[in-house]
Amino acid sequence: EKSSNIENYFRESRLEEFLKLTKVTNSYGIFTAHHLNDHIETFLMKITRGSGLQGMEGIKEFIELNGLKIYRPLIQIPKHILLKFCYKNNILPNYDYTNNSNAYSRNRIRNNIIPEFEKINPNFLESINRITKIISQINNKEKIRLFNEFEKLEPNYEENNISFSRIIFNDLPEFDKKLILKNNSEKLSSGTFMENKHLDYIIEKSYSKSNNFSLDLPGPIKLIATKKRITIEKLFEIDFQ
Amino acid sequence: EKSSNIENYFRESRLEEFLKLTKVTNSYGIFTAHHLNDHIETFLMKITRGSGLQGMEGIKEFIELNGLKIYRPLIQIPKHILLKFCYKNNILPNYDYTNNSNAYSRNRIRNNIIPEFEKINPNFLESINRITKIISQINNKEKIRLFNEFEKLEPNYEENNISFSRIIFNDLPEFDKKLILKNNSEKLSSGTFMENKHLDYIIEKSYSKSNNFSLDLPGPIKLIATKKRITIEKLFEIDFQ
Repeated sequence: EKSSNIENYFRESRLEEFLKLTKVTNSYGIFTAHHLNDHIETFLMKITRGSGLQGMEGIKEFIELNGLKIYRPLIQIPKHILLKFCYKNNILPNYDYTNNSNAYSRNRIRNNIIPEFEKINPNFLESINRITKIISQINNKEKIRLFNEFEKLEPNYEENNISFSRIIFNDLPEFDKKLILKNNSEKLSSGTFMENKHLDYIIEKSYSKSNNFSLDLPGPIKLIATKKRITIEKLFEIDFQ
Repeated sequence: EKSSNIENYFRESRLEEFLKLTKVTNSYGIFTAHHLNDHIETFLMKITRGSGLQGMEGIKEFIELNGLKIYRPLIQIPKHILLKFCYKNNILPNYDYTNNSNAYSRNRIRNNIIPEFEKINPNFLESINRITKIISQINNKEKIRLFNEFEKLEPNYEENNISFSRIIFNDLPEFDKKLILKNNSEKLSSGTFMENKHLDYIIEKSYSKSNNFSLDLPGPIKLIATKKRITIEKLFEIDFQ
């Protein structure tokens, strides 16, 4: 859990640096050079670690995190095509070593697993790419449905917390409860990683007769419940020395 | 395409044999010995070959094909546990060599790919198993929604064909059109494998001014359109000599 906290810390620091940079340069957002191979590797990493439908979208072409707009215009292009383009045009690609927290697993996927899949289907990357698009369609439809569902919970949005009616929440199907808890935590901090055991605990507690309860979640997130409301709160930055 | 036809032929013959057997023995259905490893291998095979959400369910615990009920009571149990049980109880497992059409790819997944994934996460099988369950929930929800949608198309069901209104079909979202074409073809013959290019062709043709058109589909399935109706038809058995 400590390593995941440190990872979060670095992720958020990187985001903040980018945000500052866009402000200083008066930019609309940033571009990253992620390509199709990164996207498919991420998909495989996520399913290996037991991700849900969110992770199965792989790397998104566009996201907005803490107000920072991030575009990945090369995400549909395989790495070998980008490399060929670079060689042809005498461009020396710049390798990014900053995001090496999962280098071990990622290398295994890149060097051992994907080549094996490509022996079965040379168009493996494209096959998985198609799947991520289907998943993304499903997720978008779900997001709209869930947003409408959440609006019925008398929600209250502040900068560092989101709260909603515990009583109406208790009446939702389990599937929706889990998504509401996950999505709202991720909205507060992109570094949240809620596991099923946390979700099950919260759902059970919320349904029980406990008037007040609270739970520290992975990432800088805490959940606090009173008799009538559930609040998800973003904690202050942790200072690593 | 020929090899896929032969595969279909054998699949359907096997089904017919099982059906005869259940009738002769006056049985309710059959059990197969598929286990968790089979299930995960199937999932990986399907995503490698570009399957959609249907294939991502892996091997289902229960299906009914041409009236034959097939149960897989061991599908949640890893192979090594079944083997341990057999050794402990002096049972010699019987290996099934009849379904070897995809042995090459399956062995690659079983022997090279899954062990690599397990080095990243020892609970890899369980992670994927969880995903297949989420996908299956989504598919079931979609099936209900789509069934209601399809009922609006004035459908007509016969033993060897299903027809529906071409005009109402044309007004559906593309996503639903594709699922309606795929699901109904699969309902007529379990051996149908419709690709995106077929679906795109049908959708475009149906929307065009062509009064009559038809298309031979992979598997023993043909689609015939008139000005007002679209019919999906199951062809007679092909006789391989």
